[in-house]
Amino acid sequence: MEYIEKSMIKAAETSGATVLKSAFQNFNPQGVSGVVIIAESHLTIHTWPEYGYAAVDIFTCGTKVDPWKASECLEKDFEVGSVEITDMFRGIIKNPGGKNCESNRTIE
Amino acid sequence: MEYIEKSMIKAAETSGATVLKSAFQNFNPQGVSGVVIIAESHLTIHTWPEYGYAAVDIFTCGTKVDPWKASECLEKDFEVGSVEITDMFRGIIKNPGGKNCESNRTIE
Repeated sequence: MEYIEKSMIKAAETSGATVLKSAFQNFNPQGVSGVVIIAESHLTIHTWPEYGYAAVDIFTCGTKVDPWKASECLEKDFEVGSVEITDMFRGIIKNPGGKNCESNRTIE
Repeated sequence: MEYIEKSMIKAAETSGATVLKSAFQNFNPQGVSGVVIIAESHLTIHTWPEYGYAAVDIFTCGTKVDPWKASECLEKDFEVGSVEITDMFRGIIKNPGGKNCESNRTIE
C-alpha cells in the first residue's frame, strides 16, 4: 500500500498538482483503494491484484495541471502492460483550457 | 463542509455501501473537495458554490451497492435544480451485474 500511495502522490506532483490530503485502505488478502485530494480535484485508485487490474481516476481542472503526466508516471511505476484511457471533459468548464475552476481559491 | 461530508457518507450508506474512510478539504472563500472510500470503491465531490455547481463521482462495484440510491440521496440533500449524469461501466467487469470486484476480500 505504501508504494501505491507514494506513487499516486508522486504522480499528482509530477502533473503539477498541489497535494492536500491522501487516504488509503488495504484489503485482505490483497488490493488497495486510495485517493489523493489535490487543490485541482483528485486522483483515485482501486487495485485488484488477483486480476492484474487497477482502475485509476485522474480528475483535474485548470490550466496548471497536466493529467497525462500523472498517467505516464503511474504507468511507469506500476509497469503497466496494457492501458485503457477514457478522456472526459465535464461540468462548468465550457472552455477546457479555461481557468474557471481555479477561481480565486486558497486552501483552508 | 460538515454538512457535505455527512451527506456524502449518508448517500454511501443509503446505497448499501460499507464506508471505510473519508477525507474532506475546505477552500477559501468557498468550495469543498472530499472523498468517501467505500469497500466497493469511492464517492467524491468537488463544489464550486460561486457557480452553483458540484461534480460528484459515484464509483461502485458488485451487486450489493446501488449507486442510483446515492445519487438520489445527494440530489435531495443538496436541493439540486439540474443534474447531468454520465453512467459508465469500466474495467474488468465484463458482466456489470457480476461479483468479480467483490472477490473474497475483507477490510484490513
